[in-house]
Amino acid sequence: MSFRTERDTFGDLQVPADRYWGAQTQRSLQNFDIGGPSQRLPPPLIKAFGVVKKAASIINVSYGLDPKIGDAIQKAADDVISGKLMDHFPLVVFQTGSGTQTNMNVNEVISNRAIELLGGELGSKNPVHPNDHVNMSQSSNDTFPTAMHVAAVTEISHSLLPALTGLRDALNEKVQSFSHIIKIGRTHLQDATPLTLGQEFSGYVQQIDNGIARAKDVLPRLRFLAQGGTAVGTGLNTRKNFDVKVAAEISNITGLKFQTAPNKFEALACHDALVEAHGALNVIACSLMKIANDIRFLGSGPRCGFGELMLPENEPGSSIMPGKVNPTQCEAVTMVAAQVMGNQTTVSIASSNGHFELNVFKPVIIMNVLQSIRLISDASRSFTKNCVLGIRANEKRINHLLNKSLMLATILNSHLGYDNVAKCAKKAHREGTTLKEATVALQFLTPEEFDEKVRPELMLHPDDE
Amino acid sequence: MSFRTERDTFGDLQVPADRYWGAQTQRSLQNFDIGGPSQRLPPPLIKAFGVVKKAASIINVSYGLDPKIGDAIQKAADDVISGKLMDHFPLVVFQTGSGTQTNMNVNEVISNRAIELLGGELGSKNPVHPNDHVNMSQSSNDTFPTAMHVAAVTEISHSLLPALTGLRDALNEKVQSFSHIIKIGRTHLQDATPLTLGQEFSGYVQQIDNGIARAKDVLPRLRFLAQGGTAVGTGLNTRKNFDVKVAAEISNITGLKFQTAPNKFEALACHDALVEAHGALNVIACSLMKIANDIRFLGSGPRCGFGELMLPENEPGSSIMPGKVNPTQCEAVTMVAAQVMGNQTTVSIASSNGHFELNVFKPVIIMNVLQSIRLISDASRSFTKNCVLGIRANEKRINHLLNKSLMLATILNSHLGYDNVAKCAKKAHREGTTLKEATVALQFLTPEEFDEKVRPELMLHPDDE
Amino acid sequence: MSFRTERDTFGDLQVPADRYWGAQTQRSLQNFDIGGPSQRLPPPLIKAFGVVKKAASIINVSYGLDPKIGDAIQKAADDVISGKLMDHFPLVVFQTGSGTQTNMNVNEVISNRAIELLGGELGSKNPVHPNDHVNMSQSSNDTFPTAMHVAAVTEISHSLLPALTGLRDALNEKVQSFSHIIKIGRTHLQDATPLTLGQEFSGYVQQIDNGIARAKDVLPRLRFLAQGGTAVGTGLNTRKNFDVKVAAEISNITGLKFQTAPNKFEALACHDALVEAHGALNVIACSLMKIANDIRFLGSGPRCGFGELMLPENEPGSSIMPGKVNPTQCEAVTMVAAQVMGNQTTVSIASSNGHFELNVFKPVIIMNVLQSIRLISDASRSFTKNCVLGIRANEKRINHLLNKSLMLATILNSHLGYDNVAKCAKKAHREGTTLKEATVALQFLTPEEFDEKVRPELMLHPDDE
Amino acid sequence: MSFRTERDTFGDLQVPADRYWGAQTQRSLQNFDIGGPSQRLPPPLIKAFGVVKKAASIINVSYGLDPKIGDAIQKAADDVISGKLMDHFPLVVFQTGSGTQTNMNVNEVISNRAIELLGGELGSKNPVHPNDHVNMSQSSNDTFPTAMHVAAVTEISHSLLPALTGLRDALNEKVQSFSHIIKIGRTHLQDATPLTLGQEFSGYVQQIDNGIARAKDVLPRLRFLAQGGTAVGTGLNTRKNFDVKVAAEISNITGLKFQTAPNKFEALACHDALVEAHGALNVIACSLMKIANDIRFLGSGPRCGFGELMLPENEPGSSIMPGKVNPTQCEAVTMVAAQVMGNQTTVSIASSNGHFELNVFKPVIIMNVLQSIRLISDASRSFTKNCVLGIRANEKRINHLLNKSLMLATILNSHLGYDNVAKCAKKAHREGTTLKEATVALQFLTPEEFDEKVRPELMLHPDDE
Repeated sequence: MSFRTERDTFGDLQVPADRYWGAQTQRSLQNFDIGGPSQRLPPPLIKAFGVVKKAASIINVSYGLDPKIGDAIQKAADDVISGKLMDHFPLVVFQTGSGTQTNMNVNEVISNRAIELLGGELGSKNPVHPNDHVNMSQSSNDTFPTAMHVAAVTEISHSLLPALTGLRDALNEKVQSFSHIIKIGRTHLQDATPLTLGQEFSGYVQQIDNGIARAKDVLPRLRFLAQGGTAVGTGLNTRKNFDVKVAAEISNITGLKFQTAPNKFEALACHDALVEAHGALNVIACSLMKIANDIRFLGSGPRCGFGELMLPENEPGSSIMPGKVNPTQCEAVTMVAAQVMGNQTTVSIASSNGHFELNVFKPVIIMNVLQSIRLISDASRSFTKNCVLGIRANEKRINHLLNKSLMLATILNSHLGYDNVAKCAKKAHREGTTLKEATVALQFLTPEEFDEKVRPELMLHPDDE
Repeated sequence: MSFRTERDTFGDLQVPADRYWGAQTQRSLQNFDIGGPSQRLPPPLIKAFGVVKKAASIINVSYGLDPKIGDAIQKAADDVISGKLMDHFPLVVFQTGSGTQTNMNVNEVISNRAIELLGGELGSKNPVHPNDHVNMSQSSNDTFPTAMHVAAVTEISHSLLPALTGLRDALNEKVQSFSHIIKIGRTHLQDATPLTLGQEFSGYVQQIDNGIARAKDVLPRLRFLAQGGTAVGTGLNTRKNFDVKVAAEISNITGLKFQTAPNKFEALACHDALVEAHGALNVIACSLMKIANDIRFLGSGPRCGFGELMLPENEPGSSIMPGKVNPTQCEAVTMVAAQVMGNQTTVSIASSNGHFELNVFKPVIIMNVLQSIRLISDASRSFTKNCVLGIRANEKRINHLLNKSLMLATILNSHLGYDNVAKCAKKAHREGTTLKEATVALQFLTPEEFDEKVRPELMLHPDDE
Repeated sequence: MSFRTERDTFGDLQVPADRYWGAQTQRSLQNFDIGGPSQRLPPPLIKAFGVVKKAASIINVSYGLDPKIGDAIQKAADDVISGKLMDHFPLVVFQTGSGTQTNMNVNEVISNRAIELLGGELGSKNPVHPNDHVNMSQSSNDTFPTAMHVAAVTEISHSLLPALTGLRDALNEKVQSFSHIIKIGRTHLQDATPLTLGQEFSGYVQQIDNGIARAKDVLPRLRFLAQGGTAVGTGLNTRKNFDVKVAAEISNITGLKFQTAPNKFEALACHDALVEAHGALNVIACSLMKIANDIRFLGSGPRCGFGELMLPENEPGSSIMPGKVNPTQCEAVTMVAAQVMGNQTTVSIASSNGHFELNVFKPVIIMNVLQSIRLISDASRSFTKNCVLGIRANEKRINHLLNKSLMLATILNSHLGYDNVAKCAKKAHREGTTLKEATVALQFLTPEEFDEKVRPELMLHPDDE
Repeated sequence: MSFRTERDTFGDLQVPADRYWGAQTQRSLQNFDIGGPSQRLPPPLIKAFGVVKKAASIINVSYGLDPKIGDAIQKAADDVISGKLMDHFPLVVFQTGSGTQTNMNVNEVISNRAIELLGGELGSKNPVHPNDHVNMSQSSNDTFPTAMHVAAVTEISHSLLPALTGLRDALNEKVQSFSHIIKIGRTHLQDATPLTLGQEFSGYVQQIDNGIARAKDVLPRLRFLAQGGTAVGTGLNTRKNFDVKVAAEISNITGLKFQTAPNKFEALACHDALVEAHGALNVIACSLMKIANDIRFLGSGPRCGFGELMLPENEPGSSIMPGKVNPTQCEAVTMVAAQVMGNQTTVSIASSNGHFELNVFKPVIIMNVLQSIRLISDASRSFTKNCVLGIRANEKRINHLLNKSLMLATILNSHLGYDNVAKCAKKAHREGTTLKEATVALQFLTPEEFDEKVRPELMLHPDDE
């Protein structure tokens, strides 16, 4: 392995010759040996940094930066945005809490790549200097939170929302195809009055629909960008309107809407907008936990459980029990939910502990937010494709249970009164007979009257009259 | 103590003669001896239940309930709403997870109070029956979540929002009165470039402003009411449009906007809307933690801390150290924040663990939501009145620190270059001199040039040119 | 209502004439109007404070405090310990984070009560001064954490451990009485190989047994007391060995083992021992969630669920569905679990945020710890008495399910090989027949061979050979 | 890229020719496209699986498995243990909740590697079958939790404990070297009575010492292994004492103590022991948060903060402010703490949600536990090396602050009384003079008396007399 020498204000360092990063990145690698590669800052953040640097460079040219240098920076930034330089971003989350080292990693990679494009020597900082040119008019303190917001909006827009929409549509398809199947309802896990299987699934659709709305509702405050605040929020070392123009340029590059933050002090010193955004992810996780739990319980069996649903069989379920099939997609979903619910705690603690002009838990906040987005998105897609779309109803079993139930009696309340109905239900329960048998035996109704009144299809909606 | 006999389908029970509650309430008291009086369901929920019962009764009359009975129910419900019957609601949170026992507590109290108004005998259920009349067209499964939403919207509207607005206004007053005070900024807790104390406080104002917006943003989904879903969401035993009319009547009674939920299955089976609402409370808690921490650190001293702020002295601070004054209001606020952040975990776990047609963590969810609302509201009011309004700036100290700082050097970057500026700052740091002394000694600038260029008032905003 | 005048270094205040508290308590009441009476510091903490004050007074007398004064203080402290003065402790959790105001509340109440005992005038501070005599050699900073530990050890010892032991014993009784009942096992909620119902319950017994061990294991570090550290941990204004002697005296008074903390700086500045203790409570909450969930699912039905257990019927289950009975005790337990799991987050945040010589989240920490202890204790007792002891097995249903299951096939692995066994199970599943029918139809075994080999009673333990 | 065909009971699949994994692994890769490579199950778990498979094979040979096959399995397992096959374990956490797919991944890799060693054909399952031989006498349901415990004990023993010990020793070194430096104490962030800097650091040492003890205290219940429970805990398809012997063999291989779990039903159905273990990690995280916060605040400045400590300068601190140095190691530590505190929530939720005979959140539980162990270990090492060892005291600054403070007055309480001392302190505070000047001006003491009595060195411990 060959090396070249890079330099920062602390001195010289050896850097792998085939990497674009420079001295400050290398120093961070050595000083923060925490967690290993799985703890690297996630690709969507790095790409968002590429966007920020490109946009800043475009505006800097408009304010006087040499266009040749600007152009090279923008080309190098495009390489970052494309993801093809991802191996040049080795830094982990657990570094300085401002993300300065990742900002410098980006500056160094873009500087060296731009130097290369212009035929210069890697590490020379000439003609493109990582601080003076790539970081021009910027500070880690405003670029990092800007990249956080750009990454979060991008991932919510391009990954989470489509994934949830796919899940919602798949569930909605079941609402339609299950709309004729009347089943026993269950409250407190106990038999209750009936509903259709379609109605049951309509609750899930509503949950995901709300989840989509929630994810959209957190976007407005995420669209505000810190860029232009520089070191402490005052905008020192930027030019007037730099903030507004960069936000417009970032919108232009990403095709997503962004605006400059109305108050840069807030934008650097806390990450309330990301706590808020994670709050929506947390609700979605709770929804998914509920839905996946229901589906696996309704599919439990095949012989000794509720057995109302038949889930797709995707793989052998057991290394010891032949023929066993398990609700594995539901399990992955509920594990994702548990992870996201814990991430909520992390993000909240991290954001609440900022001090004065800067919150220094930035990397851990964005890592958790992006992880939650990705896990929910991926799990929703997997769950949709490998489970929901293939769910079938076991109509025979559903009908069998419905007819055994005692809670159909509820419809008799207005005819016989609550107390008499309770007597019928309790007698049937005690003696193991049907509700009809008990009601007839107690001479409250004739068999014909019973059949006429106790019809599940009458119990699915309010009285019309 | 004297007793009377009350009865439910499980048999007879002795109830204190001076209480309106009946057999089911008494049974819950005996079966759920968990946590004691401090764990009772909070008054706002009980009052909201009064609203629900009154509204349902009005609509029931329109569908045929005897107006004399309806009128008595409504009068009794008014007594519940007024809070004067609060001693008749002894049940704790840790009861059945549907809150059925509290729904019955309300039914029993209203029934007995209505019987009393009509000259009947307590416990006779005649002429006003707790189930047949007070609970008419209702189930615990829809009244309890309806009361949850009514209580949450009411408390957010009438307590939280005014309290936060008061805090925001008090902070904003400081933004104005501190706008002329230039101070050292701090990032990573370390000296950084300057800003005004007004700018610093403007970040807090933005946080609270956003908090107010966040609290408002969760209202729309809280305004949806489960009422009309009855046992499992189908609306069995109600009449068509009962749901819509009850929601309108509840709006009418409360003067707040409510609508019937678009999907009753979702409204009974999960409490995503309350997880979402608590998510906003959680963000506000994080904001308060940050603000209160900043204020107490900026006020630390009086001699050996940052010492930039002087907080009101409200009480003796120490039982052992004479003359000590502590930032006690900040401490109460940060303890509230910790409590709310933990409540977020509770609410999320509780909502995610519903099954099938009913979530049975209802009481613990609403208790935590209402507790968080109240704690944030009360703490905000207390903090505003007893701390924020009285904060004064120690201008002498602020100015002294500003002039000692080395980070003013940042403005020289464009004149001398980052490396030369670093030399000046490091020399001054090493030798304990001022930045000016070091810069002059290194012959980068004359004293006059230094004074002309290094002016904090130039560092508070972007360059105009 | 009549008042008397009390005074502190901030001036005069009116205090209700029938209350023992003084000026500092009154001031806190006015300055911290947060949360209302349900947020008062819990009685076990106040009682523990009585213990601390009594013990300190005894040792102070040995170091020269006037025995007449000491005796009166000890008598007054006894009144605090007995709980009969509980109405004199009105302060809420959300006060100063050191609990100074509650320490002063205790000092004031004991002082006034002692003055009364000695025939003096309330509020005169003569002959028993709240600071100079009751608080002698003490600081809020060491008394409050001492009371925290004394309260936690007391409640764990006298409430939690007996309650858990009772639950363990009740579950163990079921292990015995259910030891002969063979049932289907369930993994991934799906039918699996059999076990006895006694074996299933033995897992719960192990969980609670471990919970008891965990609760005991956190006691050693809770037994260390901060007393003697005074203001910052140095022991200023105490006498040598005061710390050791007070701890011994507290042991003496409580009959529980306590020792002076080996490092007073740690004992004031953080509450790791209480985070650790709550960690054990959190595990117990997780255990209870699992056990209560299992029991309510196994008891689900009566007709359309698993239906293997019959839980005691304690109250009417539904206000709309006659005859419905619900697993309400399980629901209370799982709500308690959710609350405790959230309290874990609160306690962790609160303890981690201490600074320098003092953690100032003391009241919120101890409130959450004591609440968790009480809720688990009460819920365990309620669950034991109102649910576990009355659980019966539905042997007919259990046997029916066992015989329908396909997973008994697992025992044939060694005879027929995994692949052939899978064929039998899948054929039976597909065709809705029994495993025996499928196996015979596929000619792997004769009916007689099947009956000989596939016996559930052979599947309950390892092979003997 | 070339492929070979592998097969399971669901059919044929193409697998990369250079990978040892088989059909079930490949199926999981396709069905669980969730989270990407950073979400792979962590190496310590895979290595622990190698240990389990090796041990089981050794015992299986003793019960009759062909020694040639056993030997090949053990050699292949050694390759897994060594880590050199890590690229053959591509599965992510978010798979089936029993970890069956990872168990099969291990079975398949060991089978193919053993086949290779014996000169057979990859994918032929001959002569070493992944189920019949590698998984002999085992189930995913007992191997996975066994590997969880083996991995956790190994990482705590070999990584966490040494890392914490290193940190403790480094802090303890500071206790010694700072023992002579008297400084102002701070409670409520406000000036308080003095202590030595060594005493202050001794609190941190105690915290880490306790952390080490806590980590050791969770080992006993982690040493219990599920192995031998097979599918549901009964031990079906194992031989008597298989469980005991495997545990002994695992102890032998690892050099760490393990025992068979006393109750296998508990060992499969819940993961309380890991929640307990994570509870200790959570306390350690809280400790680290406190210590790192203190150190960065005490080091804040250099000119405008507390400034009592000088932290090592490891890298340039700012991309915009020349000469700025930040407490970056502290920031990494506090971010780790936030992550671990959130993981606590995840682990608790995941463990509490098991059902019946199996908890199916196993992968997410062990991933979080191992991540927390690694992050704390790595961060402790980094913090020790790059920060703690290099901390120096700014004695000049410390002394300056000490002498300015007003809280030294506390020592005069017994001479002048609390009220008079308060007058001196308040006068000095109000007038900006020293305590001595105020005390003399008020004629309580002569200058000589003051100097004799108010000596910080007398305030560091209890009175001797």
